Amino acid sequence: MGKGGKSHQEGEENMAAWLVGLNTLKIQPFKLPPLGPHDVRVRMKAVGICGSDVHFLKTLRLADFVVNEPMVIGHECAGIIEEIGSEVKNLVPGDRVALEPGISCWRCDLCKEGRYNICPDMKFFALPPVHGSLARQVVHPADLCFKLPDNLSLEEGAMCEPLSVAVHACRRANIGPETNVLVMGAGPIGLVTLLAAHAFGAPRVVVVDVDDYRLSVANNLGADGVVKVSTNMQDIPQKVERICEMMGAVGVHAITMTVPLTPAAAREVDIIGIFRYKNTWPLCIELLRSGKIDVKPLITHRFGFSQKEVEEAFETSARGGDAIKVMFNL
Amino acid sequence: MGKGGKSHQEGEENMAAWLVGLNTLKIQPFKLPPLGPHDVRVRMKAVGICGSDVHFLKTLRLADFVVNEPMVIGHECAGIIEEIGSEVKNLVPGDRVALEPGISCWRCDLCKEGRYNICPDMKFFALPPVHGSLARQVVHPADLCFKLPDNLSLEEGAMCEPLSVAVHACRRANIGPETNVLVMGAGPIGLVTLLAAHAFGAPRVVVVDVDDYRLSVANNLGADGVVKVSTNMQDIPQKVERICEMMGAVGVHAITMTVPLTPAAAREVDIIGIFRYKNTWPLCIELLRSGKIDVKPLITHRFGFSQKEVEEAFETSARGGDAIKVMFNL
Amino acid sequence: MGKGGKSHQEGEENMAAWLVGLNTLKIQPFKLPPLGPHDVRVRMKAVGICGSDVHFLKTLRLADFVVNEPMVIGHECAGIIEEIGSEVKNLVPGDRVALEPGISCWRCDLCKEGRYNICPDMKFFALPPVHGSLARQVVHPADLCFKLPDNLSLEEGAMCEPLSVAVHACRRANIGPETNVLVMGAGPIGLVTLLAAHAFGAPRVVVVDVDDYRLSVANNLGADGVVKVSTNMQDIPQKVERICEMMGAVGVHAITMTVPLTPAAAREVDIIGIFRYKNTWPLCIELLRSGKIDVKPLITHRFGFSQKEVEEAFETSARGGDAIKVMFNL
Amino acid sequence: MGKGGKSHQEGEENMAAWLVGLNTLKIQPFKLPPLGPHDVRVRMKAVGICGSDVHFLKTLRLADFVVNEPMVIGHECAGIIEEIGSEVKNLVPGDRVALEPGISCWRCDLCKEGRYNICPDMKFFALPPVHGSLARQVVHPADLCFKLPDNLSLEEGAMCEPLSVAVHACRRANIGPETNVLVMGAGPIGLVTLLAAHAFGAPRVVVVDVDDYRLSVANNLGADGVVKVSTNMQDIPQKVERICEMMGAVGVHAITMTVPLTPAAAREVDIIGIFRYKNTWPLCIELLRSGKIDVKPLITHRFGFSQKEVEEAFETSARGGDAIKVMFNL
Repeated sequence: MGKGGKSHQEGEENMAAWLVGLNTLKIQPFKLPPLGPHDVRVRMKAVGICGSDVHFLKTLRLADFVVNEPMVIGHECAGIIEEIGSEVKNLVPGDRVALEPGISCWRCDLCKEGRYNICPDMKFFALPPVHGSLARQVVHPADLCFKLPDNLSLEEGAMCEPLSVAVHACRRANIGPETNVLVMGAGPIGLVTLLAAHAFGAPRVVVVDVDDYRLSVANNLGADGVVKVSTNMQDIPQKVERICEMMGAVGVHAITMTVPLTPAAAREVDIIGIFRYKNTWPLCIELLRSGKIDVKPLITHRFGFSQKEVEEAFETSARGGDAIKVMFNL
Repeated sequence: MGKGGKSHQEGEENMAAWLVGLNTLKIQPFKLPPLGPHDVRVRMKAVGICGSDVHFLKTLRLADFVVNEPMVIGHECAGIIEEIGSEVKNLVPGDRVALEPGISCWRCDLCKEGRYNICPDMKFFALPPVHGSLARQVVHPADLCFKLPDNLSLEEGAMCEPLSVAVHACRRANIGPETNVLVMGAGPIGLVTLLAAHAFGAPRVVVVDVDDYRLSVANNLGADGVVKVSTNMQDIPQKVERICEMMGAVGVHAITMTVPLTPAAAREVDIIGIFRYKNTWPLCIELLRSGKIDVKPLITHRFGFSQKEVEEAFETSARGGDAIKVMFNL
Repeated sequence: MGKGGKSHQEGEENMAAWLVGLNTLKIQPFKLPPLGPHDVRVRMKAVGICGSDVHFLKTLRLADFVVNEPMVIGHECAGIIEEIGSEVKNLVPGDRVALEPGISCWRCDLCKEGRYNICPDMKFFALPPVHGSLARQVVHPADLCFKLPDNLSLEEGAMCEPLSVAVHACRRANIGPETNVLVMGAGPIGLVTLLAAHAFGAPRVVVVDVDDYRLSVANNLGADGVVKVSTNMQDIPQKVERICEMMGAVGVHAITMTVPLTPAAAREVDIIGIFRYKNTWPLCIELLRSGKIDVKPLITHRFGFSQKEVEEAFETSARGGDAIKVMFNL
Repeated sequence: MGKGGKSHQEGEENMAAWLVGLNTLKIQPFKLPPLGPHDVRVRMKAVGICGSDVHFLKTLRLADFVVNEPMVIGHECAGIIEEIGSEVKNLVPGDRVALEPGISCWRCDLCKEGRYNICPDMKFFALPPVHGSLARQVVHPADLCFKLPDNLSLEEGAMCEPLSVAVHACRRANIGPETNVLVMGAGPIGLVTLLAAHAFGAPRVVVVDVDDYRLSVANNLGADGVVKVSTNMQDIPQKVERICEMMGAVGVHAITMTVPLTPAAAREVDIIGIFRYKNTWPLCIELLRSGKIDVKPLITHRFGFSQKEVEEAFETSARGGDAIKVMFNL
């Protein structure tokens, strides 16, 4: 048994939001795994809804991942340490932490090369068959729990997850004071990319979307320009004329994207593949702590953790409209 | 007037191969420009035919470049210095040199950043409206003429041009002892890419083509594996299974390539845009001199510089078949 | 003859500040070279004094460069275009421009690789035997004259030169939101490095100096910490304890620096050689224009261009004390 | 208990070479730790002597590491798998493997960034207080045991350790067909650096040493040039004149090296810190398997594993002379 005030065995049952079938979420008991020597037990306090969570709810699949058995959902999260394993040195019960959701194997070549984000054996919150973190409590490796400074809320801690996608993209694309950035799509990931690009020193960040409301949010978040596009292909040349700058884009929505590779080659444009993130939590926390990035305006809706509210929260997120980030307060 | 044995004014008229209309080449006089202080006058001795030369002959265009007026063709070349400008220090008449065909502006941002290959004001042999080098003599900047060591032939000098494409690709793709290379297409560029990848230390270079003869050439040049593919899409999975290694590809033939970007992103694959070459002649010459690369087997056909032979040479190159590199000896 | 209001031949004689002997500057006529097709003639308006200018005045040498004949001094400068060469496209008389002082050869390997700052044939303002720019007028290549936006003063234009040193160092050291920076020395270069590091996103920039006044300036410019050191070696461990972060340093003052290479290797620290700058003016202008960097507080003293004031200005700069950047207004 | 023919408990006692005091090695029993689920038990067959082993024997220390208690020595090793842990998938008893000696924590920032070689919590064979591998048997993580192909001997497997130092240096220094290499010192590390630099495509590798015999070995291994230097400082300019090429150096012998940093900066030379290696075994094995590198000529002396031979082996290695690599066959 680890070190901490009270064990989870004594006390209330651990409840979690289970994806049990198409469009069906149920709050049900979730048995915690044993606490290993390098693990911590965390009381969840803030969990955000990601587009991939909604996608699983609506289709029971994402890319090659299929939900074959009931699975706890959720992966953008922060909470408070309740118990620590025997070997944990840098956290104590009571610490407020943001959780990095993926546990890599650290034995494969990719992990050893520092590309642990593409480890083929990664165990990632709410990627079947691994359970997620929309639960009263979870057990997680201590080295994936990052202490929040006093001036950051637990909600901001949960936002480190989507912000990490943006930070990783900015790193990989080598964003700096000389890279103008075009963000394609003003959803949550597009918007945090806007914020991160500015924090990396990008002088001009332009955001493109089909939706007026989202573009107005981008504007409020400091976009140096916004461009509304439509599916009407005919105005593309005119739109492109307004976007005569270098591009960066993050997202997994389109299975097929038409990219003009030959003209790209003639200008020696590089297309950089980006998947999730790695080593981003410390930087996200520093950017939030120092005020270089403020993610609070992205949190548009909040819900409690009752059966009814969980259903409403996912509906709200799925509906889009004025919902950017929907957050649970547990 | 520069320094050199005899001026070109005295002596025979300078003749060149002009592209004067669709499918029509004529050997006609070509007036040389004046010799600037940093220029040299070169007697051409070896000029290769490139796929783009044939493309211009057959269509009078390439990408956005259109032949509106008669133009001297040819850009893969080597020759002997006949005269040097007043400020030229490192070359003397009699030197055997390979010519880099593009003259950059050295005033734009791209040139100054060392990306002179994508200079928008580049003047490139046989890219309209700039004349090419299939001529008895040309005038060219001395710093684009690279002296050949004694153990290299002028034909090998001319081969530095296609080899440069491969060398630049290997550099940009960071080929080394840890990069397996897949070459898509066993034309001249594919074959020099095979040779260059090995010289950069690549442990395994696999070549793909639709043509048995070309694959046999790749085999003879040391490919670690060859894969014949067809336009029959059904055997793709089976072919891909045989090609479970990292990819590199050079070529401008396909206007539309279908590249699976989403799976590429999930593995953080980068797609590197490559256009021509820069700073490659010294390395090409060193690789040829030291014997790490032998391009001689690629030269399958040779022609003289008469009207009839020029026509035959281009037909031979256009026909493909067993013609890899067709070379003029002037 | 180029295009412009009036030629310099008609009008007043061109005067310049000549270094004619040890500690001796004289304002004397300076004959302008002819205006080439790609050149411009610039009326100098702001010229700053650099430590190297003072060093030449006091010793007639710097590193391997020796002043053997009278030489016009000065290289940090900005002015107004008076005349443009026949081929100049992007500047017109009346444009306010900052001047990059070094003219590279663009024919050597280093220039072609984009490392023109270490071109062995560079002609650099006030590096003997090349004349400098503390003159009423100079002739300079148009591509080294960068147009200033309306909201920047000519003095800020002249400051692009020292700022370029800092920007180049930040680029080479890959400064970004994850690099804490230690600046050793709070002279003009140390101070612009502080400003540039912040503009590149550095979260913490600490400045070290032996002088209280300079450290107070660093503080006012936003240093996240300042550390006063002394030549007393005994307090080094204690000082180092306060500086437990990654280092970056720019400067040419010490001929011998003791750097602990073995411990550095054990932590895989890289030591990056930095010489001057390249391709920095557009970025400097953008950083000043957007307000991300403000160099105006560094300009502590201003002088006119009389014989007496030139002498006073150099004395002021040499004396140090509260003089950071001494600027001429011509 | 793991899977394998016979457990080590049954069978002969495990003996190892213990460093028990200054200049004193004793073959004594060495109790194996329990076999974890991801571990393997390896019967050692080849162990090389490294300069650091000799240094520990002669001084009981190396840098900050002090031998306070008896410690098993040795870290360049290869052997045969005897038993595998319950979770080990890619090895079976009987496999011949080379061992990477350092076990990183995989929880610190450096490990996660892929810089596991500078993990502050690394447990490394024969770095006190961690025991080494000059023993009949050792227990080691399976992911640090790399299967040898049939055409490689176990001695070549043990040579992967010193070769890894060279491979890591070549990677970090970005050695390729355009980097001439100067190797300072023709000891075992200098000699494998010569071999690795060639395998990475370096066109010219020059080796410097004070010893004629070692330079003759470098010559036999394919050095493109050798230069004998002396401690006589006066001939340095003359020697340097012969070495007018880019430098690379590996080694930890000199505590103080005088490096001319100011001239280095003026040429934008980078000094790259290098410590041990990471992710090198697969590449070393491939380079040996394919014949691009042959390390066998470096193995000059072989000894068995008796008390007397162990003492003789270390004396031979310490004496230098014609001993390059001294190897135990167990």
